[in-house]
Amino acid sequence: MGDALVVGGGLIGLAIAFELAGRGASVRVYDRGEPGHGASWAGAGMLAPFAERIDDEAMLALCRASLERYPAFVSRVTQASGLHVDVVLDGIVEAAFTHDRLEELRSFARELAARGIPCELLDRRDTLIAEPALGKHVVGALVVHGQGYVDNRRLGRALLEACRARGVAIEAPVRGVAVECDGRRVLGIRSERGFAPADVVINAAGAWAAHVDGIPERARAPVRPIKGQMLALAAPEGFLHRATWVPGAYLVPRPDGRLLIGATVEDAGFDERVTAQATHALLHAALAAAPALGAFTVTETWAGLRPATPDGRPLIGPTAVDGLILATGHYRNGILLAPVTAELVASFVETGDVTPLRELLPA
Amino acid sequence: MGDALVVGGGLIGLAIAFELAGRGASVRVYDRGEPGHGASWAGAGMLAPFAERIDDEAMLALCRASLERYPAFVSRVTQASGLHVDVVLDGIVEAAFTHDRLEELRSFARELAARGIPCELLDRRDTLIAEPALGKHVVGALVVHGQGYVDNRRLGRALLEACRARGVAIEAPVRGVAVECDGRRVLGIRSERGFAPADVVINAAGAWAAHVDGIPERARAPVRPIKGQMLALAAPEGFLHRATWVPGAYLVPRPDGRLLIGATVEDAGFDERVTAQATHALLHAALAAAPALGAFTVTETWAGLRPATPDGRPLIGPTAVDGLILATGHYRNGILLAPVTAELVASFVETGDVTPLRELLPA
Repeated sequence: MGDALVVGGGLIGLAIAFELAGRGASVRVYDRGEPGHGASWAGAGMLAPFAERIDDEAMLALCRASLERYPAFVSRVTQASGLHVDVVLDGIVEAAFTHDRLEELRSFARELAARGIPCELLDRRDTLIAEPALGKHVVGALVVHGQGYVDNRRLGRALLEACRARGVAIEAPVRGVAVECDGRRVLGIRSERGFAPADVVINAAGAWAAHVDGIPERARAPVRPIKGQMLALAAPEGFLHRATWVPGAYLVPRPDGRLLIGATVEDAGFDERVTAQATHALLHAALAAAPALGAFTVTETWAGLRPATPDGRPLIGPTAVDGLILATGHYRNGILLAPVTAELVASFVETGDVTPLRELLPA
Repeated sequence: MGDALVVGGGLIGLAIAFELAGRGASVRVYDRGEPGHGASWAGAGMLAPFAERIDDEAMLALCRASLERYPAFVSRVTQASGLHVDVVLDGIVEAAFTHDRLEELRSFARELAARGIPCELLDRRDTLIAEPALGKHVVGALVVHGQGYVDNRRLGRALLEACRARGVAIEAPVRGVAVECDGRRVLGIRSERGFAPADVVINAAGAWAAHVDGIPERARAPVRPIKGQMLALAAPEGFLHRATWVPGAYLVPRPDGRLLIGATVEDAGFDERVTAQATHALLHAALAAAPALGAFTVTETWAGLRPATPDGRPLIGPTAVDGLILATGHYRNGILLAPVTAELVASFVETGDVTPLRELLPA
């Protein structure tokens, strides 16, 4: 394989670089900020396609395929980087606080069972045994097995080290990044550090993918930012055992005891500020479901911008400009979809075969 | 005047040291932490005795006396320190969101008028003209003139500099502070920095006053900590014009645009942690009253411990140990009462006359 340049050092960009470098390509990653610090840094690391209630079967299949690949993917990253990354797939909990909601979960459990997804409906007593932090108004819960979360920030750091270990050049932070094309095909990337020629440029700039300089209109990514705000509490280790969905929020434990509460879904442009409204709404939802959380300190609040597409599917594959490949639009599933995205992009670069991408092609 | 040692470098301790030094005493202040960083640092700087609904006439008179002294006090501190400190006495707003509450404010306005306190009841329209940030459910407001707030953190820094300018020795941070007494009277203070003899020791250790080492049981201050949590939003300058009470919270503007939201009242011992419960409750109250606040970022959360006394009055004056003077128990009014406290303590040290302290004597 030849030279490949990746615009965007988020989880998707780094995963692609890692995969391409593993197949022998000479890879360079450009990021205007800190690599590993994009929307995937800002997420909770949920690996839970079923909790997202994805109706689109092609999208669901993609998510499931990526979930299957996760343990092996993380293990390769761990091996290359020498950094441990927690992947916890011990199931996720969806808690019901009304009987109507419990009935919905019951019927969802039947759907999952019909698909062969192992899951379990818990009554009130068993829910409180499983997650004693849930408040007394809980009426039951659905546990979906085989799903969970990854420590996404740690994964970002490990991927960065893994890329470096495979010889990937990291150009970050770098200003003035612009894709150069002639009438037909991509020529390379110009930045404040000069011009780098390449036959392959991958636009993995997440929510900013539509705004990468130098890309002709016809190859522009139709993505827009959807803001997500989150916060972290300093909870004692083991306060919550599994990632838990409650009305209005999800609560995700971390091995260090932190408890993440997410996430808002806001159409607010490129505004990355944390707002009092969102902090209030997330705390409100979390405290209503698990009042004991009230005693812990909010240690961090942050926001990220997810790249959303018109049809809800990511955009992975070639564009109208030869050699310019798009890999963005993962919306709420960027962390989950990183392994399969990296594999799809690397295979396309290697073979030029678009068949595996037919559901995801940019145009 | 001779030597005086002050235990506690909060606003009260520093104000006393400043006053004593101004009268020619040689003063030394001990603080185990950062001076100017006590409960008064953690407050909102409210100078609003009437908003506190103090029923105790002696206490109210003390608060009013201190409020009258504020501008001159701050001006002396400013002059000695060279640091500007904002004191804003353009009135405080108490907003009503129900007609019952507005009727209560109306009858309170009559009481204030009978006492000669200038105030004004606003209808809905005038309330929204005065404070457009208040939500559409506001029904009216009471404006009490002549009250307001001081930038209390800035005042702490300025007092510290003013003390230094007057030759006060600041022993902080210092460990192992203990008052030394014989059977009858105070001898001085021992600390990791050695022994300092003095005829006068002032216990201004705020919520910790009952726990200063070396003080005999009979001279112990009967104070306990009452936790207050607050938060600050990054609001645009002028978003709120005056300090405003709303149901469940008060909102205090700062000249730099920050908006403070306070404060909880919690009997939680010496726990100074910020809790999710308090952050939620303060945001909940503030957003219900002024929904537009939701767009701003929470930039800081903090907690302080107010020194509460059994009867709600501060404890100012001599104790059962000769030479050991108490100056604590200011509860929610420590910032307001700093000038009058400093004056009372300094006059007592100078004259030995307890008459002006008769309502406030420790035993």
